[in-house]
Amino acid sequence: MPSRDRVHYFGAGPAPLPTPVLEEASKVLLNYNDSGVGITEISHRSADANAILAATQKALRQLLDIPESDGPDGYQILFLQGGGSGEFSAVVLNMVSAWVGGKLKEVGGDEAKLAEVVKNQLKLDYFVTGSWSLKASQEAARLVGGEHVNIVTDARKHRDGKFGVIPEQSTWSATSDKDSTALTYYCDNETVDGVEFQSTPTGHNLVADMSSNFLSRPVEVSKHAAIFGGAQKNVGTTGITIAIISNRILPPHAELAKPELLRKLGLPVGPVVLDWPTIAKNNSLYNTLPIFDVWIAGKVMERLLQIHPTASGPKIAGQQAESDKKSQLIYSTLDSNSNVYHVVPDKSVRSRMNICFRVKGGDDAAEKAFLKGAEERGLLGLKGHRSVGGIRISNYNAVPVAAAEKLAQYLQDYAKSA
Amino acid sequence: MPSRDRVHYFGAGPAPLPTPVLEEASKVLLNYNDSGVGITEISHRSADANAILAATQKALRQLLDIPESDGPDGYQILFLQGGGSGEFSAVVLNMVSAWVGGKLKEVGGDEAKLAEVVKNQLKLDYFVTGSWSLKASQEAARLVGGEHVNIVTDARKHRDGKFGVIPEQSTWSATSDKDSTALTYYCDNETVDGVEFQSTPTGHNLVADMSSNFLSRPVEVSKHAAIFGGAQKNVGTTGITIAIISNRILPPHAELAKPELLRKLGLPVGPVVLDWPTIAKNNSLYNTLPIFDVWIAGKVMERLLQIHPTASGPKIAGQQAESDKKSQLIYSTLDSNSNVYHVVPDKSVRSRMNICFRVKGGDDAAEKAFLKGAEERGLLGLKGHRSVGGIRISNYNAVPVAAAEKLAQYLQDYAKSA
Repeated sequence: MPSRDRVHYFGAGPAPLPTPVLEEASKVLLNYNDSGVGITEISHRSADANAILAATQKALRQLLDIPESDGPDGYQILFLQGGGSGEFSAVVLNMVSAWVGGKLKEVGGDEAKLAEVVKNQLKLDYFVTGSWSLKASQEAARLVGGEHVNIVTDARKHRDGKFGVIPEQSTWSATSDKDSTALTYYCDNETVDGVEFQSTPTGHNLVADMSSNFLSRPVEVSKHAAIFGGAQKNVGTTGITIAIISNRILPPHAELAKPELLRKLGLPVGPVVLDWPTIAKNNSLYNTLPIFDVWIAGKVMERLLQIHPTASGPKIAGQQAESDKKSQLIYSTLDSNSNVYHVVPDKSVRSRMNICFRVKGGDDAAEKAFLKGAEERGLLGLKGHRSVGGIRISNYNAVPVAAAEKLAQYLQDYAKSA
Repeated sequence: MPSRDRVHYFGAGPAPLPTPVLEEASKVLLNYNDSGVGITEISHRSADANAILAATQKALRQLLDIPESDGPDGYQILFLQGGGSGEFSAVVLNMVSAWVGGKLKEVGGDEAKLAEVVKNQLKLDYFVTGSWSLKASQEAARLVGGEHVNIVTDARKHRDGKFGVIPEQSTWSATSDKDSTALTYYCDNETVDGVEFQSTPTGHNLVADMSSNFLSRPVEVSKHAAIFGGAQKNVGTTGITIAIISNRILPPHAELAKPELLRKLGLPVGPVVLDWPTIAKNNSLYNTLPIFDVWIAGKVMERLLQIHPTASGPKIAGQQAESDKKSQLIYSTLDSNSNVYHVVPDKSVRSRMNICFRVKGGDDAAEKAFLKGAEERGLLGLKGHRSVGGIRISNYNAVPVAAAEKLAQYLQDYAKSA
């Protein structure tokens, strides 16, 4: 029966959290801020809850250099429920509403003309580079119809039917008219397939899923219309989803399509809890927000600011250096034992967060033995996603350097004995 | 700086939780089931997570006598995210999809005929008896258009423009043709207004919001198509919403309308995370479920089964008796000091969960003094909802009898001194 300090957990999400944060959490559960009331019990409209919300937003702004302004260049930080999968839908519902609102203005309010514009022009561009962006593109097709979804690239077509590469930009087929592009969607890091974008792709109305590499490197926020991520990897617990939304797609800078208009056009009207303008207008307190989960995220962020102080430049740089160091150690150990290990994705797109590989060409007995040996050393959560098999080392922020070193040692030892 | 045992918290939600559950929670946050991994960190697809899910569903079935069967009379227990407000939308999206699917079959697949049927017949019936059912009816109108929403009763019209009564059944105007009624919606207990249904109303395809009186009395489950509730009152924490869904509106017992058909009809297609059939098919694990919140709810339910053992009849009866006892004590104290206190809703519909009253006719200074005096005795969370003002005592399950007694004593003392 292992204690917490005897194991290292490499699960892909929910992911490990820093022990000091969990220790503090275990206290505030019973009594927050000496109020005699626990943090899950306090009102989301109390002064304590508002302070937690503000502190978490402030820390995130600092870490990722998120522009703060009421003007069109500013960004709002929202907390929602429903996870990344909820945002797969929210992205479509909100971006399409903003696009249609803009077009209505262009056609001078002529609804017949607008219907033609929607039918002939509306396009949602998707980069499909792994299991999650594939799912997001399928949700878009379900919501607005496949005829409006354009696949900029399907990475599987460039590599034996399986994910593991980001095709060359010269092969991409984005919608040619940017005025038709309601959104361009990409998943910055594919958790299942271990594929990570090495730079921000180009695209109009850019939307990014950063669920599994959030807070591990700087982000070019101002290139995006929206960025979102489930919190349960690098940031916190499963209960909240973070969204960073450009003012350009929110009122008063954007005019949104009214529900009755969307219905007439055969376009979906979204649930109010996924409506970014409503959530932004209410500073994430439209309905009851799980404040405990926001508090956890805030503590994780404040801790990053403390343990990796940076004199200049983006404040996330220190954590980036640590993430790079850990992933380089593991990849180099895998590469130097290439007779036993085979990294799944191409070298040029390897994820620093989710390191996917096979043991002895995917031999079932060998992979089971590998996992068993790891478990004996207290190295847990290494099984690959059920849809692809193999081994996956998730190298999130709360995985200490010492854990990565212990794992690298095991990789070395297993290879020698295999 | 009060400690937990020095205060009594009467917040309306998030609500207090039993201290023993929070004490155990503070341990499992760091190490669940001697795994060395905390409960927010474990995979939602692990054996531990599955066991938590199963135990929670089992306890809920026992407490509310929820029919378990794969046949049309059975009910599924789902855990979702997005709170009651999320379900305001889910109710519409799912019930309309099932209704349209049924009609498509009736018209033999003739889509032109179906469009006529939708236009002329589709009705969603709403009982508007307080702030929350009003909001739910507004969300329905936003999603499908006000022409399809029928208000069975608007309680404000029967009482000086304000909520506080459930009008006589003879005054209700339900849709006359039950084949037209995609749903009949009511809010069993109105948290803001302190109004509670005293028995299950009649209606076709009955849907109930039980967010704030869940697990406080037996429920006639089999009269309903769907029952839902945010967990953060009597059940647990904010992160999850519980839904009890009849198999009659799920495949294979129901045929659902396809997204492309709904779009053609100008009806909304919902996000996958609010799609009950998808969530049911995946036993609430379609996407990452906040297992910690499910665990809390399960522990609260198991505790109810332990502290109120019942030899026969519904297992929630013991808790009902305790809830009744506490609310009777408080109402009788208020009534016997009617020169100082005025209960807001009519006597016949008083909520056992949210006791709303005014001090000295709503005198601001008096109400502030009342709250200040309460705070000095460690009686917290008594301020009425910001939209209606006044005082609100929320008498949820985790409020001990001793706390209700202490509060009754204060009501008595304040009245004497006032």
